[in-house]
Amino acid sequence: MLSISQYREAFSEYLEERIRVQEPENLYEPMVYILSQGGKRLRPVLLLMATEIFNTNYRKALDAALAIEIFHNFSLVHDDIMDDAPIRRGSPTVHEKWDMNTGILSGDAMLIKAYQLFENYDNPIFKELARLFSKTAIQVCEGQQYDIDFETREDVSIEEYLKMIEYKTAVLVGASLQMGAIIAEESPKCKEAIYQYGRYLGIAFQLQDDYLDAFGDPDTFGKQSGGDIIENKKTFLYLKALETSGKSEGQQLEHLYSINPGDSSEKIEAVKNIFQSSGASELTRQEIKKYTKKAFDVLEKINIPREKKELLKKFGESLMEREV
Amino acid sequence: MLSISQYREAFSEYLEERIRVQEPENLYEPMVYILSQGGKRLRPVLLLMATEIFNTNYRKALDAALAIEIFHNFSLVHDDIMDDAPIRRGSPTVHEKWDMNTGILSGDAMLIKAYQLFENYDNPIFKELARLFSKTAIQVCEGQQYDIDFETREDVSIEEYLKMIEYKTAVLVGASLQMGAIIAEESPKCKEAIYQYGRYLGIAFQLQDDYLDAFGDPDTFGKQSGGDIIENKKTFLYLKALETSGKSEGQQLEHLYSINPGDSSEKIEAVKNIFQSSGASELTRQEIKKYTKKAFDVLEKINIPREKKELLKKFGESLMEREV
Repeated sequence: MLSISQYREAFSEYLEERIRVQEPENLYEPMVYILSQGGKRLRPVLLLMATEIFNTNYRKALDAALAIEIFHNFSLVHDDIMDDAPIRRGSPTVHEKWDMNTGILSGDAMLIKAYQLFENYDNPIFKELARLFSKTAIQVCEGQQYDIDFETREDVSIEEYLKMIEYKTAVLVGASLQMGAIIAEESPKCKEAIYQYGRYLGIAFQLQDDYLDAFGDPDTFGKQSGGDIIENKKTFLYLKALETSGKSEGQQLEHLYSINPGDSSEKIEAVKNIFQSSGASELTRQEIKKYTKKAFDVLEKINIPREKKELLKKFGESLMEREV
Repeated sequence: MLSISQYREAFSEYLEERIRVQEPENLYEPMVYILSQGGKRLRPVLLLMATEIFNTNYRKALDAALAIEIFHNFSLVHDDIMDDAPIRRGSPTVHEKWDMNTGILSGDAMLIKAYQLFENYDNPIFKELARLFSKTAIQVCEGQQYDIDFETREDVSIEEYLKMIEYKTAVLVGASLQMGAIIAEESPKCKEAIYQYGRYLGIAFQLQDDYLDAFGDPDTFGKQSGGDIIENKKTFLYLKALETSGKSEGQQLEHLYSINPGDSSEKIEAVKNIFQSSGASELTRQEIKKYTKKAFDVLEKINIPREKKELLKKFGESLMEREV
């Protein structure tokens, strides 16, 4: 087996070789542009790693890994239009660099291109990959819709929020790992377990994202501290704080989430204080631990040698420590 | 075999039964909305008809027909955003009735839903359908991109224009018919011929659309007369007129295509006069006949009984006479 950075390197080489600008250029240039900006390549690396953990050469999984990465970037292109985001990974977003129509259409082409990459697999693997891909892709759309809906809803439950992040983020991690098991022609039980490992890890990761947005070190975390608070985003921390805080504290929090001051530093501090005094920050840490443990527990059930389990566990740990 | 209106009826029933609003409603309501508005259902009817022409019950083809219709409507939803079109089939467009983000996201979900419908076919039919679908879908995106590019290009050739309408319109007609042959497990030769029949017919149909926009009876044609001229759209008529007209007439036409008068009736008349005096309108009629003949010639090569060929031919003729 290779190291994580070696898988990333092998994937990037394959991507550069396969993803080239073709005619009509205005359709394919944005695709090459966003795919060349790097990013952590987490999903393709997980997919390649899973394939080798199940005793199959990662080269067999490169097309599926590329499909997953193209799909992930398709969703970023369309989400950035919907969020009107000007910057992604330090560069202008596609609709900003070109225009909105280019973002919509090249995004559509990326989604179709992702499907085409599975054609390099023979049946029954092709059908299994395409089916898992469609199921996951529609869940990602549903997750995005729930996320949009929640912006204007005042009665979002913790359960609904967890489903939203599961769909929007976690299922694609699960599917990436499961694709490795499908390509390696593993047993149904094994395919299910590795999917659940990714799904739980994805939920833990996203909850941690919420937590770090408020309490992380901005230098290490790489995002603006308190960004979610500025945007009045109903994160796990917020929903948990509403649930656990007393009446007056809850009303104060709701008030803080209804204002948009020019200088938001006081607002951020006040919200963070409630997150801590209500116990929400501690409960969020516990929830992150709970899902991380669920992930590692399900890993134990997979019938692979101990050292391979350790590899997956190490990857999960370094992901949660934000080292990969 | 059923009649065209019976196939349409059977398809509509199936669509109503299968396409229901589910959670999250804001994602699926627009899908149900646009699919319920009717339209001629040309592509699904052709697909069902082709299946029966090749001796297979049309019921086997209903999922593929639904996939094609959903894809067609997905492309309308996204195209309407790009064209900023307020009305489609007499009703507000999706982005007008909801908003742009809803149009983008529910369009994405429709594209994925279309793929999912093929899962109801066993291999190798599933893979063949999915592969043809992806190839066609990416061509439709490329055709749309060429169409957008042509708006700001002054050197579009007739050849490029033909490729654009082939990709944007004709390949989906060809693919619909070929899917019927795939589901009926016909020979490769037959699958190819029926595809070409649809492709040629689709090109002829789109050329006729260009022609009727200028010279059709607005009551029968159902669109505003001269709409393409008002929008300075570089149609086959326009490109052919530039090619065949003398220098001063050509310059006059280019001038007319650079202005946007408040009352466009004089402009429309002047452009139509050049279309006729240059011989472009006659040459366009000939081109339509040429592609219609190509379609009917390729039909002759297909190894099916004469009466079935007649059915396909009659459908093509009534399509060109705008009776279906």
